[in-house]
Amino acid sequence: MSFFGALKSSAKTLTYITSFQYGKRGTRHIQAFIIGSGFATLMTVNKVNMDAKRKLSTAQFMAEPITSLKQLAEKENDMRTKMELMIMKVQADFCRSLENEENFGQKFKVDRWQRKEGGGGITCVLQDGDVFEKAGVNISVVTGTLPPGAIAQMRSRGKNLGEGHLPFFAAGVSAVIHPRNPYVPTIHFNYRYFEVENSDGQKQWWFGGGTDLTPYYLDEVDAEHFHKTLKEACDEHDVEHYPKFKKWCDDYFRINHRNESRGIGGIFFDDVDTPTQTDAFKFVTGCANAVIPSYMPLVRKHKNDQYGDKERQWQLLRRGRYVEFNLIYDRGTKFGLYTPGARYESILMSLPLNARWEYMHEPKVESAESKLIEVLKNPRDWIKVEQKAQLKN
Amino acid sequence: MSFFGALKSSAKTLTYITSFQYGKRGTRHIQAFIIGSGFATLMTVNKVNMDAKRKLSTAQFMAEPITSLKQLAEKENDMRTKMELMIMKVQADFCRSLENEENFGQKFKVDRWQRKEGGGGITCVLQDGDVFEKAGVNISVVTGTLPPGAIAQMRSRGKNLGEGHLPFFAAGVSAVIHPRNPYVPTIHFNYRYFEVENSDGQKQWWFGGGTDLTPYYLDEVDAEHFHKTLKEACDEHDVEHYPKFKKWCDDYFRINHRNESRGIGGIFFDDVDTPTQTDAFKFVTGCANAVIPSYMPLVRKHKNDQYGDKERQWQLLRRGRYVEFNLIYDRGTKFGLYTPGARYESILMSLPLNARWEYMHEPKVESAESKLIEVLKNPRDWIKVEQKAQLKN
Repeated sequence: MSFFGALKSSAKTLTYITSFQYGKRGTRHIQAFIIGSGFATLMTVNKVNMDAKRKLSTAQFMAEPITSLKQLAEKENDMRTKMELMIMKVQADFCRSLENEENFGQKFKVDRWQRKEGGGGITCVLQDGDVFEKAGVNISVVTGTLPPGAIAQMRSRGKNLGEGHLPFFAAGVSAVIHPRNPYVPTIHFNYRYFEVENSDGQKQWWFGGGTDLTPYYLDEVDAEHFHKTLKEACDEHDVEHYPKFKKWCDDYFRINHRNESRGIGGIFFDDVDTPTQTDAFKFVTGCANAVIPSYMPLVRKHKNDQYGDKERQWQLLRRGRYVEFNLIYDRGTKFGLYTPGARYESILMSLPLNARWEYMHEPKVESAESKLIEVLKNPRDWIKVEQKAQLKN
Repeated sequence: MSFFGALKSSAKTLTYITSFQYGKRGTRHIQAFIIGSGFATLMTVNKVNMDAKRKLSTAQFMAEPITSLKQLAEKENDMRTKMELMIMKVQADFCRSLENEENFGQKFKVDRWQRKEGGGGITCVLQDGDVFEKAGVNISVVTGTLPPGAIAQMRSRGKNLGEGHLPFFAAGVSAVIHPRNPYVPTIHFNYRYFEVENSDGQKQWWFGGGTDLTPYYLDEVDAEHFHKTLKEACDEHDVEHYPKFKKWCDDYFRINHRNESRGIGGIFFDDVDTPTQTDAFKFVTGCANAVIPSYMPLVRKHKNDQYGDKERQWQLLRRGRYVEFNLIYDRGTKFGLYTPGARYESILMSLPLNARWEYMHEPKVESAESKLIEVLKNPRDWIKVEQKAQLKN
């Protein structure tokens, strides 16, 4: 989770579906049909100057976008608009995809919340499903002024930012999925866009994000599939991305005090602002769209695997480690929770439903559990492994 | 937990009992009988100048002290020695007291560990008992040089410390007890002594500590008993201690992002160095000795209370909050875990065996659970409550 879950006010539960169409050329209006639990609204927004015939469907979104439909239509070419529509689509696609795996029709609970200072978010949580024990998929689109701590942190990363309270815009999607079956790994991803306006009025922008996998039992074929899917998404834009962002991921998701990684990695990056804004956006969109093909095959492959109490207990212990990373090291979580008025429920939805800590737990030598620990202590180059495997065939 | 659990190296499990006697006047030797699982040793240390006939029994300690018996005997009037012997006695008394409540003879596992840089600790953990789900009682006695971060932190608290790596000594006892029955509260305490040598050779020393209670269901009589016992221990030394340290406790154990306290408080203090070193030591000893009378009656009162799955689930959720406090806010835990080579198992023994996080969980209005939340949101002055109750009788 991250800053994008931040800053509550009047969080309210909405469980509706929003649908609207951009008007055709010359009609100068938007018709928005908001159909929900017990109400239907027809919203007509006039005075929108549409240059071209265009159709944009939000029918599949989990809730109404955070920014008004009018503003989205007026600023359709603005990166803020593009990003908001992208993350809402990614959220909806992923939620539907997860719901499809549930055997008894468990659905996401949708909370659309707003913040006084500007913007808001949509938090979707599916809890106690038969396939997913806890799944959280969050988007947020927020504006405001950056607290000094955040500016200092950005400056330390090389951003040329002045003093004072600088206006910012942030939009992102983030998700953590904790499945019930210990043979199905946990996945986390987060894709975000940031804009800061300097005191001289100059804007800086960048993208960040990543996708990473946390298995409880190591399945090398799964690990290779996961990394290969991410690599392909990266390679479409820059072949240097995957190796660089794979290493960044290994370095970032490290539980330092245990000298082990949270999981088997993936990709992680920040401050992406090249070669152009459009290209960077396409890259991030490509990564976000790779989440489903990287992960859902693993869910389908393992969701009916047999397991017993031993595997469940091990999963709970590993979830304890997940909590340790998120609460002690994760920049986004810390930044979020230390922000006054943070919507902590959206930030902490990343925590598992259940977790466990045993004193001095050590998996047995040569066990399936110790095989996982080995790879957490020493992150592997999964694609190389895969290449070797192919050579053998 | 805290710094006193820190800094491992060659941690090894010892499960023996140490017994030694200071020699009588003029005999100039110490006989130390170390009797353990399968071995007995007679240790004779000569050349120790004993001024008076004196007997010091360590037979009840959970393991051999960290400092050598020879050195303890040579420096018997040094505060370092007094503190080490005090915390070892507190550890043993508390462990025995807890073991006595177990119905099936569950015992503490004793890990005596040493650190390369100097000193070590004794970590006692009882896990999966029928009364205590997880109980950790740790002592540590460590020497070394303070990392710059620690110096900066101490300086910010008003300590007059120079630059560079300053030699320090720290000895402390800390414990967290998570009972199985949701009607038995969790207790935490920590008492510690610190010495730092400044670059000019001048020594600074101080005591810190506290005891606090985290119930899952509010029992006002229990809360009053707990606070009253701590107040009496404080009042013996300074009647201003309890009100001041009670408030400090309420301020410290606050889960800021949820705007609620971890529990119903107790006492918490740091930097105690008045009126004299001996008096400060007596005060801390008095507080440490108040742990058993403040807590064990509550264990005996509730350990057989009937409860069902609803109460268990609530307890697990509250334990999730406990984890949040310890990993996000607790100074000792953070300081410990960020110290390279920290013995994280001793630091993290404070975490419960099981914990749970539900998205947007809200207890029902007017329920027993919401009654607890009310007092966590608004800490009470328990002694006043008690005085009123007495007036009514």
